[in-house]
Amino acid sequence: MAAGSERSGERPAAPAAAGSAERDGAVQVAIIGAGLIGGSLGMALRACVGAQVRIHDRCGQSAQRALARGAADIAAPTIAEAVAGAQVVFIATPLRSLEACLREALEHAGSQCVLSDVGSTKAALVEAIADPRYIGGHPLAGAEGAGIEAAHAELFAGAIWYLTPRSDATGVLYERLHRLIAAIGAQPVALQAQVHDRLMACVSHLPHVLANVMIEQADELRRSDRRLQAAFPAAARGRSFRDITRVAGANAEIWCDIFAANRDELRARIDAAIDALARARELIAADDSQRLRSWQQAVAEVRRELTASAMGDARAQELRVQVPNRPGVVAQVALALGDAGVNIADLSLQPAADNSAGVISLWVCGAQDAERCRALIAELGFPVLS
Amino acid sequence: MAAGSERSGERPAAPAAAGSAERDGAVQVAIIGAGLIGGSLGMALRACVGAQVRIHDRCGQSAQRALARGAADIAAPTIAEAVAGAQVVFIATPLRSLEACLREALEHAGSQCVLSDVGSTKAALVEAIADPRYIGGHPLAGAEGAGIEAAHAELFAGAIWYLTPRSDATGVLYERLHRLIAAIGAQPVALQAQVHDRLMACVSHLPHVLANVMIEQADELRRSDRRLQAAFPAAARGRSFRDITRVAGANAEIWCDIFAANRDELRARIDAAIDALARARELIAADDSQRLRSWQQAVAEVRRELTASAMGDARAQELRVQVPNRPGVVAQVALALGDAGVNIADLSLQPAADNSAGVISLWVCGAQDAERCRALIAELGFPVLS
Repeated sequence: MAAGSERSGERPAAPAAAGSAERDGAVQVAIIGAGLIGGSLGMALRACVGAQVRIHDRCGQSAQRALARGAADIAAPTIAEAVAGAQVVFIATPLRSLEACLREALEHAGSQCVLSDVGSTKAALVEAIADPRYIGGHPLAGAEGAGIEAAHAELFAGAIWYLTPRSDATGVLYERLHRLIAAIGAQPVALQAQVHDRLMACVSHLPHVLANVMIEQADELRRSDRRLQAAFPAAARGRSFRDITRVAGANAEIWCDIFAANRDELRARIDAAIDALARARELIAADDSQRLRSWQQAVAEVRRELTASAMGDARAQELRVQVPNRPGVVAQVALALGDAGVNIADLSLQPAADNSAGVISLWVCGAQDAERCRALIAELGFPVLS
Repeated sequence: MAAGSERSGERPAAPAAAGSAERDGAVQVAIIGAGLIGGSLGMALRACVGAQVRIHDRCGQSAQRALARGAADIAAPTIAEAVAGAQVVFIATPLRSLEACLREALEHAGSQCVLSDVGSTKAALVEAIADPRYIGGHPLAGAEGAGIEAAHAELFAGAIWYLTPRSDATGVLYERLHRLIAAIGAQPVALQAQVHDRLMACVSHLPHVLANVMIEQADELRRSDRRLQAAFPAAARGRSFRDITRVAGANAEIWCDIFAANRDELRARIDAAIDALARARELIAADDSQRLRSWQQAVAEVRRELTASAMGDARAQELRVQVPNRPGVVAQVALALGDAGVNIADLSLQPAADNSAGVISLWVCGAQDAERCRALIAELGFPVLS
């Protein structure tokens, strides 16, 4: 909770009212990159928390369009001018330019400014940017459309928004970012950057590769026989084919960067998929209907487990945790809970009067998550006050 | 057009009014198997063409439920009783019992009855059942739900319905089946049985295998790390993952039979997918963003081609084709057009007075398809009268 003293920690009446946490007028946000994500973020922040948004884009026209579409209050001609005076900076440029933009923004940002990004891979960036003001981010949103014209304020409603803080991330800055994201309707989830990239290789990047592979082998097949060629347009209307190929050949600029940035994790996932395909091939060749049936049943069971979401009690409960005032303690708590799958609906910091320690209030949903949260905090050695 | 003499070929005013083609009261249909497909078919045939439907199911309760749900007029206690007097028989049992049911139905069906089935694979059955009254069928419908309780009359609306006639299929029987299927709102498409199975291996069976493989490698991954295990339920909400795993572990009874029945074609598709995945792996490993970008762009282009449907003029045009009266000539024409991707919206047979020859009226949509239809018929050596 380094820099916990910058605000006196009055708890607003309702959780997730991030806007009201800024007592001296509107929260000042800079957004670098006026595309689908940057534009939607500007719209959402202005609509939900009344943020004052400055937007910059390398392409001045895009920034002007963002302004015209209500995604910002000011179009800034440079990163420096966008960032000046900002409390929060989001870098929403293409993956390959994130690092350079982040470095430039960090140069011009104040010591109490939190900087984040929206890149689809996180480990390389979190490794490269050794600054406690930087907290990696990745909203799971934005598959459809591209550019400022497709932007809308509801893009992040209900979306998972991964946060990948470094271990030395400043607590009060993590809090501010978390609450702002929750306030626009997204669900912040803390994950370590490498874990994030491994997970995305599995649930997002591999499906994109498999979609491409489906198209490639279909293409190979249709070229083999004129009758198949003719039959394809109708057959491709089938739902299995449409679903599995929906993301095939997705935006080449974006996806060649993602594949490259997550190369090692993705290769491991492709290898696992090749192994699983080879096993499936042998199973199908074996002419053993009992084993085939067991395979289907086992897969169905795992699918249910993987996609089952914890239901039950949805009321948010507050847990107050006493923590020492040292760098990284909020990130440590957030990651411990994120690693265990406990979702933090909201969090708030209250530094002690002498600033030697403080209290983190955590809101978690459901009795089960609250119990797990208590146990996890206890493991970290911090007293839970309530 | 063998047996073309059984009806005098008055053309009804509107195409696809199959019910009105039966002048002596309602068309008599037998359905064997009162599940989702059989039940829905009964409902659709009764609703759209006023068919008189007898349904049989090995499970008497299912047949009674079908009756109660309006899928049939009569629940028949045996296949023989269901088939007696029927003009059309559909076998809608699980894949593994299709052949036995078809043989039993053929034994009891009249010489002018057409028998079809709804199995997901066709080559083995079409090979095994050497009877000109049998025409294989496969509606692309029914992915959601199972059993008579899920049945509804609109299940086939707009669905592709493959017909896989043997080369000696009786023309007038093919016509009757085609028109009945078109009348319930489905789109009949003629394909050779082996071509059908190869196509389905690609657009349906392989996607099911890939869905299973996605689940298996995700399961492997989550077991490798407690943090990943915890993060999965949220991550699995992502659309790419949901889409690609939607059919994972689909109905084990149905799918172990499909995988087994289409073993050879499916293995060839899995091999092609493994090859394509290995190429993708090398491409991603190669650290060459230009090649990655080209890959994405090429896949996007193929996807567009594969899924592009011929638009343009949708008015049905009639082409009248003079054909000799010999077995298999209607199947020959239907397959020639199906192989070329020309959709027959409706067809009708008019035998000559002396029964030595006849005219097939074909309705095809759009000027382009009409032109292609003319050219294909010319290749077959039959005169086009109009």
